[in-house]
Amino acid sequence: MQHLRHCQGFAQVFLIRSQSSKLSKSVIPSLSVWGGHLSSRWRSTGGHEKQEYNERRQKFRFALAGLLAGTGAVLAYKLHQGKVERATTPANLPVAQTSSLPVYTLEEVTKHCSLDNGVWVTHKGEVYDITEFVAVHPGGDKILLAAGGALEPYWALYAVHEQDHVLEILSEYKIGVLNTESIKKQESANPSDPYSAEPTRHPALQINSLKPFNAEPPASILSDNYITPSAIFFKRNHLPVPRVDPETYRLNIEGLPGVVSLTLSELKSRFPKHTITVTLQCAGNRRSEMNKVKQVKGLNWGVAAISNATWSGARLRDVLLYYGFGPEVAAKAQHVQFEGLDRDVTGTAYGASIPLNKAMSDEGDVLLAYEMNGEDLPADHGYPVRVVVPGVVGARNVKWLGKIVVSDEESKSHWQQNDYKGFSPGTDWDTVDFKSAPAIQELPIQSAITHPAEGATVDGSVGEVTVKGYAWSGGGREVVRVDVSVDGGNTWHVAKLRTSDNSQDPASPPPPGKAWAWKLWEIDIPLPYRSQELEIVCKAVDSSYNMQPDTFAPIWNLRGVLSNAWHRVKIKVSQDLKDQK
Amino acid sequence: MQHLRHCQGFAQVFLIRSQSSKLSKSVIPSLSVWGGHLSSRWRSTGGHEKQEYNERRQKFRFALAGLLAGTGAVLAYKLHQGKVERATTPANLPVAQTSSLPVYTLEEVTKHCSLDNGVWVTHKGEVYDITEFVAVHPGGDKILLAAGGALEPYWALYAVHEQDHVLEILSEYKIGVLNTESIKKQESANPSDPYSAEPTRHPALQINSLKPFNAEPPASILSDNYITPSAIFFKRNHLPVPRVDPETYRLNIEGLPGVVSLTLSELKSRFPKHTITVTLQCAGNRRSEMNKVKQVKGLNWGVAAISNATWSGARLRDVLLYYGFGPEVAAKAQHVQFEGLDRDVTGTAYGASIPLNKAMSDEGDVLLAYEMNGEDLPADHGYPVRVVVPGVVGARNVKWLGKIVVSDEESKSHWQQNDYKGFSPGTDWDTVDFKSAPAIQELPIQSAITHPAEGATVDGSVGEVTVKGYAWSGGGREVVRVDVSVDGGNTWHVAKLRTSDNSQDPASPPPPGKAWAWKLWEIDIPLPYRSQELEIVCKAVDSSYNMQPDTFAPIWNLRGVLSNAWHRVKIKVSQDLKDQK
Repeated sequence: MQHLRHCQGFAQVFLIRSQSSKLSKSVIPSLSVWGGHLSSRWRSTGGHEKQEYNERRQKFRFALAGLLAGTGAVLAYKLHQGKVERATTPANLPVAQTSSLPVYTLEEVTKHCSLDNGVWVTHKGEVYDITEFVAVHPGGDKILLAAGGALEPYWALYAVHEQDHVLEILSEYKIGVLNTESIKKQESANPSDPYSAEPTRHPALQINSLKPFNAEPPASILSDNYITPSAIFFKRNHLPVPRVDPETYRLNIEGLPGVVSLTLSELKSRFPKHTITVTLQCAGNRRSEMNKVKQVKGLNWGVAAISNATWSGARLRDVLLYYGFGPEVAAKAQHVQFEGLDRDVTGTAYGASIPLNKAMSDEGDVLLAYEMNGEDLPADHGYPVRVVVPGVVGARNVKWLGKIVVSDEESKSHWQQNDYKGFSPGTDWDTVDFKSAPAIQELPIQSAITHPAEGATVDGSVGEVTVKGYAWSGGGREVVRVDVSVDGGNTWHVAKLRTSDNSQDPASPPPPGKAWAWKLWEIDIPLPYRSQELEIVCKAVDSSYNMQPDTFAPIWNLRGVLSNAWHRVKIKVSQDLKDQK
Repeated sequence: MQHLRHCQGFAQVFLIRSQSSKLSKSVIPSLSVWGGHLSSRWRSTGGHEKQEYNERRQKFRFALAGLLAGTGAVLAYKLHQGKVERATTPANLPVAQTSSLPVYTLEEVTKHCSLDNGVWVTHKGEVYDITEFVAVHPGGDKILLAAGGALEPYWALYAVHEQDHVLEILSEYKIGVLNTESIKKQESANPSDPYSAEPTRHPALQINSLKPFNAEPPASILSDNYITPSAIFFKRNHLPVPRVDPETYRLNIEGLPGVVSLTLSELKSRFPKHTITVTLQCAGNRRSEMNKVKQVKGLNWGVAAISNATWSGARLRDVLLYYGFGPEVAAKAQHVQFEGLDRDVTGTAYGASIPLNKAMSDEGDVLLAYEMNGEDLPADHGYPVRVVVPGVVGARNVKWLGKIVVSDEESKSHWQQNDYKGFSPGTDWDTVDFKSAPAIQELPIQSAITHPAEGATVDGSVGEVTVKGYAWSGGGREVVRVDVSVDGGNTWHVAKLRTSDNSQDPASPPPPGKAWAWKLWEIDIPLPYRSQELEIVCKAVDSSYNMQPDTFAPIWNLRGVLSNAWHRVKIKVSQDLKDQK
């Protein structure tokens, strides 16, 4: 609630142009239809209204299960497949100056900036009292950041809000319109689009969300390179990409005896440069498969939210020791927190933390990386400095690193506390207690098929099918075997693993517990006699002999993370012409 | 082959009394029947005989799939369930002095002690030429240890050989009998039973093999104590229990700058005493469930080849540093080998190794333990000193520790090289290449139900069922959740975990990566309405979010290790009398 201490200040910050010029006819009927279906707005607190409220609460929980927390976790149910582009040029509502509803001034709206005074927001010149909605907002009270002002700055950050069903829900709370003068005030305060300075991306990337930018390479090209080219390395941004001036860049470190503020050149010159090959994987990789069991909340990643690169930089351990990390600090500290320079409109930075022993261990290999694949970090991957935490979920590999805090506490960020955690299949949004589960750090064993593609047809006359893919495990556990089946998992063949591009010498085996990079695998399997359809399955084993679970339903979780059941691909086998003669 | 360098020496060692006094009538008909079925002995090497040989080779592979490697890996298919006792007082064959077969002297037998000269052995006064069998002996060329002498000393070590089907196979190779004088010679060289000095064991233990002794507590009492009482802690011995005099005991260390030979009191007085709670688990725990998919080779453990104890001793790291471990040693070494004082008749000790980084890491917590649960180690658990390697498979926790070797190589022991490794379900004894898989070190996530028992009936009128069990994971990964289902895995409930006995305060959470001890769990789950039968299922999740695989077939492996699929228990629900009124 600290965001709401100064209503007036926020009202000023939130002044923004109301984009009122376009009118989408298609949305209006849809809204009126839903207006009829949804119960009238509820205002009192007693008797059957309470029950009605609870029912509506459930309904919203359901309707909004995929709605974004206003904090970076992005809905991507693909309820509106192919509408990513449209979502960025949203269907606009009319400014209803001709409405019979009350007309408000911006000053009146700004007074309603707390649960005590009521929570009003504006959107495209209309005024909404969302006080009762706050409790059921899937993103929690982050919605209060917009209290007393315009929604647009937030929705500009998280384009996922710009969908029909969100507008439909919002319409239920409409209480009036802004007067013309107020709309002009908002327009005059128009901030630039926070996403206007995003870098150019490779056209091959398959986009899951434009704002923030989230995309993966096509699976078919992912395993073409042992080292993924930076341009097609999966992108997972929670906020707009910050443009950082390397000359003025400072890396601040707290929690050590003195005040530390490092320049980029100091980081590069003061500490030995280490280079390691590390695979990063999003916690939501392969979420689309879990989504088929039952809808989950999150970007609908395919199998390619994972990539492998060479990273160079200073070791975090070296830097912390240089600036005074010693027994006195160690006695109190348990975590190392990271803050990015990517911020939302309230100034809240992306944040995460890792356990102190990972950060300080000689074998942890945590880097403050300033190079990726031999070049400066690309803007999408954290220029000028990012953390690379080998063996640990992508979300802790904080990009555009601005601050390091050695602390007795985990990061308090949303992404550490209320996101990126695993739950039982029996846990839903009504029963989840985020405190009950640990923040994901090391990821479990994973593998997937990159070739052939689902639905592909292979030539039956060849007599065999070539299957390719990747395998990786968290915590430095080496992939020791990949089993592949072409009969749905009844019989298994052992694939050939490789640890370099075909033209290169294979990498020497990593020391125990330091297998940070994936293995690519390949196998030719004889086609079962006269088969017309095959279900290809893969599963990997790591050096702790962890295996992938067989199926998704038993590992289903409401955020759709840790989606590592066997990967299954169905293909067709073309008729063998020789047989038909 | 080094064992065979000195035939004459071995012949003397192998002289042993032939136990010829008892005659089992039941075996003789069985032998003659099998004599008819089995093809006549094959001697030449060309043409169709070769094919016949290969067919027989396959047959033996099958017939002997469970036969003991002569090295400690014990057959326990339970082909002969309940016959453990009988196996120790084997059905004896007659000394066939009246046979029409040739009569040999011991001197003649001892000449046939290599593949070049032929491999002859004696058993109960009979002579066998097993030259052709050597290649198909499941235990490999360890069988050559007995070449030129008596089988009895080996079979005394591994009572599993004393089974009808082994005798049947042996009978195929019979070529003659010993003369009376030779039999007397063997009798006069009669060594004492290597198992005559075994400690007394708790009567509650369920015995899987008497010689060597392997037993587990009943599952129903396993989870009664967070700290397993030493008496019922599962016992997994590969060889006879050595009786070690603490006064003359020496722990020798090789691979450091100087020669190190430590007394017990030096070990206790020179190094700080550390106490940690560590769960040990046999690689074969729950093998009996995997066995139901398809027969595997190994002791048929239930769910209780796992226990938890408090161990005290010196840290291996402290000892090695004290005696000169430094950068010079570290530059060359990669492993720390352990040798037990338990030896077979040839003097080969039990042996294993762990990676150097586990041994030397400040966080590895590897102990040279001399106390278990606050008392001197019991004889069955390694008195006076054993290694405790937290988070690592029991087999590396070498008991009766005699020697430590800091080395650039893994232990060359059978148990490190050709046992305790995992393979694909598609790998069988004809295709297995033990070099292709890493020795098991850290174990994967595991859990099992200890209450109710399979087939139990619960009172339906109570309306709920209490389910209890344990969960543990290797590598110090903490168990973070156990899911329990009473409908075969369709819906899941989260169990309550505990880290102490009920009467004690719960242990404080372990530091990340140092969760060495199991968690016990319990949950009351409502009975599905009017259910008459339930399938209870459990699965656990560790701090790296590793999950157990759903089923056994896809993780089946020829040695039946790493058996950690969901545990399933079927129970009955009694009729609710109130319903029937």
